[in-house]
Amino acid sequence: MNKVLSGLRVVEGAAFVAAPLCGMTLAQQGADVIRFDPIEGGLDARRWPVTREGRSLYWAGLNKGKRSIAVNTRSPEGQQLIAALITAPGDNNGIFLTNFPASGWLGYAALSKRRSDLIMMNITGNPDGSSAVDYTLNCAVGFPFVTGPMHGDAAVNPVNHVLPAWDAITGITAAMGILAAERHRRLTGEGQFIKLPLADVAFAMLGNLGYIAEVQVNDEERRSCGNYLYGAYGCEFETRDARYAYVVAITKKQWQELCAATGLGEKLAQIETLLELDLGKEGDRYAAREAISAVLRPWFRARTLAEVNAAFERTGVCWGPYQTFRQMVEGDPRCSVANPLFAQIEQPGIGSYLVPGSPLQFSASERVRPACAPRLGEHTDEVLGTLLGLSDSQIGKLREQRVIAGPIDLA
Amino acid sequence: MNKVLSGLRVVEGAAFVAAPLCGMTLAQQGADVIRFDPIEGGLDARRWPVTREGRSLYWAGLNKGKRSIAVNTRSPEGQQLIAALITAPGDNNGIFLTNFPASGWLGYAALSKRRSDLIMMNITGNPDGSSAVDYTLNCAVGFPFVTGPMHGDAAVNPVNHVLPAWDAITGITAAMGILAAERHRRLTGEGQFIKLPLADVAFAMLGNLGYIAEVQVNDEERRSCGNYLYGAYGCEFETRDARYAYVVAITKKQWQELCAATGLGEKLAQIETLLELDLGKEGDRYAAREAISAVLRPWFRARTLAEVNAAFERTGVCWGPYQTFRQMVEGDPRCSVANPLFAQIEQPGIGSYLVPGSPLQFSASERVRPACAPRLGEHTDEVLGTLLGLSDSQIGKLREQRVIAGPIDLA
Repeated sequence: MNKVLSGLRVVEGAAFVAAPLCGMTLAQQGADVIRFDPIEGGLDARRWPVTREGRSLYWAGLNKGKRSIAVNTRSPEGQQLIAALITAPGDNNGIFLTNFPASGWLGYAALSKRRSDLIMMNITGNPDGSSAVDYTLNCAVGFPFVTGPMHGDAAVNPVNHVLPAWDAITGITAAMGILAAERHRRLTGEGQFIKLPLADVAFAMLGNLGYIAEVQVNDEERRSCGNYLYGAYGCEFETRDARYAYVVAITKKQWQELCAATGLGEKLAQIETLLELDLGKEGDRYAAREAISAVLRPWFRARTLAEVNAAFERTGVCWGPYQTFRQMVEGDPRCSVANPLFAQIEQPGIGSYLVPGSPLQFSASERVRPACAPRLGEHTDEVLGTLLGLSDSQIGKLREQRVIAGPIDLA
Repeated sequence: MNKVLSGLRVVEGAAFVAAPLCGMTLAQQGADVIRFDPIEGGLDARRWPVTREGRSLYWAGLNKGKRSIAVNTRSPEGQQLIAALITAPGDNNGIFLTNFPASGWLGYAALSKRRSDLIMMNITGNPDGSSAVDYTLNCAVGFPFVTGPMHGDAAVNPVNHVLPAWDAITGITAAMGILAAERHRRLTGEGQFIKLPLADVAFAMLGNLGYIAEVQVNDEERRSCGNYLYGAYGCEFETRDARYAYVVAITKKQWQELCAATGLGEKLAQIETLLELDLGKEGDRYAAREAISAVLRPWFRARTLAEVNAAFERTGVCWGPYQTFRQMVEGDPRCSVANPLFAQIEQPGIGSYLVPGSPLQFSASERVRPACAPRLGEHTDEVLGTLLGLSDSQIGKLREQRVIAGPIDLA
């Protein structure tokens, strides 16, 4: 957390990963992000992982540092309140983030009538507006057929990724897009509607990384190369204590350091004669990857992970240990309060655990303690009172009519 | 491509994915991004994938829309030129993006002496400054042990991801961070140093997605669930024509639509009695995933992928086909010039292929044709002439001394 975006306010109507991550990313740089949800909770209110009592660790993870209001979004009164909040006057207001269908009362046409310089970010599935989620896109962009063991060129045995990478990339892209539009508004006074299809984020990244050119220019279908790093050298090794390490030599310097630190430079040089390759070249290291691994493997098998660490410490070898989630949480100082990215925080209804702030460190805006997520509707009264100027009796009446509520503990 | 960031200028000294992707992302929103490289090319100049002639499709993919200058970065004269460019006066100048070591002549201390309101974004590996790349981080953050076939709780057979997801997320986060700092400078006049460790991006995302809380709160180590979607319903199916489809039912509505579109609602309802579960609940659908898949599998085996598509079209079923990279490029209209995200563009030295612009669509800044990547040093003279005011004869002398060069065709 920091305060670099201090003063900026964003109203968020969202669910699942991409759009909530966008709002949270802005909140973690100090923006005031107000998420609205129906009184019964949004579509993601109970999304797994959950605690044994059924509270969503997922929701808590993706809504940190926001304010939450709970509104009956089906009632005309509730819709009025939300529209008023989205289009509230003031330089820092008038930014709306959503992955809901942008139509009717939540459409840009209706909202921009209330505030002509509104900035509205709409994350969608496919560019034609049809539905797509991380899982239904990832299967379409080739990776599942090149993930996992080498298996020739048959398009069988797809292996899905587990990290919702397209959602994550989309959420951050949306945050960047909102700041770009806010800059434009600050310079020109002009607001705008911004559309960001999850599918286009994925297809664009495929193009950026050369996968499309590989098919069209080289007429080649990339095959799985298992855990080898494509196009240079990278491989996983088992250690004497049944741990695993991944070792990388993309640059020539990384390769030289690996040769030196293992003391296997002379043996590895023999591969050059054997296979007629120049291991100073990254592509040749890829071609020789199995031979290189065969030479290195006994070195790792003879050492524990701690001994590997000791041998590589203070060298330029580029490597890392494999860790399960538990090993990471219990043993990696980067994932602990020793890293100022994290704080041990009490999340109401869930318990105390390591909560990350923003990975961005701004020298002009000191890091502040990471925030936890709000309870559903924790800020309903406060937001409607201070931002819309509603009186206590007006708020009381809206509560009686069940137009608004909160705080609510979902279970 | 669009012009929403028109006027903004960024000087980039970078290599590989994260930092170049940051610069390209800003360039694709209209910023003038000037990448400098040594005359022999940067560390990523020949990174795979490459064409049969050895030209890097990777470099071309990650430097689209930038200007390129080639400078002898070891010579004091070359370092002077770059420092002058980074710290050039003017509201829109004074932004430097790098993943090089931020020390000496490229350190914030030295550069900010020349321009006190400099914004400098430094992407690093680990928070302590030690080296880490996507591959050596991904192994450390748990995913390889939960990717691929179910295999109980033994931490064996790690399966790496292929998409460099941490690099991609880091690059976009850096672009967002630069815009946040630029907003701060516009409002306060203050520049700053921003540090973004790749490792912190990964560990923060693990926290955001609930993986850390799962260990600390639930005392549970997530296991692989194969291609099943964790915590709700999602599964892959083979079709009659040996293709694969992925079907998702995260929300109750998606589940109801799947039941209706397959006509298997009654059979699926029997599972509720059989397993004593309520399939209206996402967690119960996860618990019943194997039974649900067993009921659905013959339906898919009896149909071709086209027939599945026909059955699901205009329904609310959330699904997608598996596609290899070639199938995606040759058959998916979203990955074609039918999608304005793309244009078929001639990349000098490589050939003609589908090139993506930005996935962001700004209503106030019309989409313009995606740009290709520059040749190395294509803009050396133009940049030094217009931005540093060097005369033709000064430029000529620097060329003679091999302080600058370009355009250069690397092979």
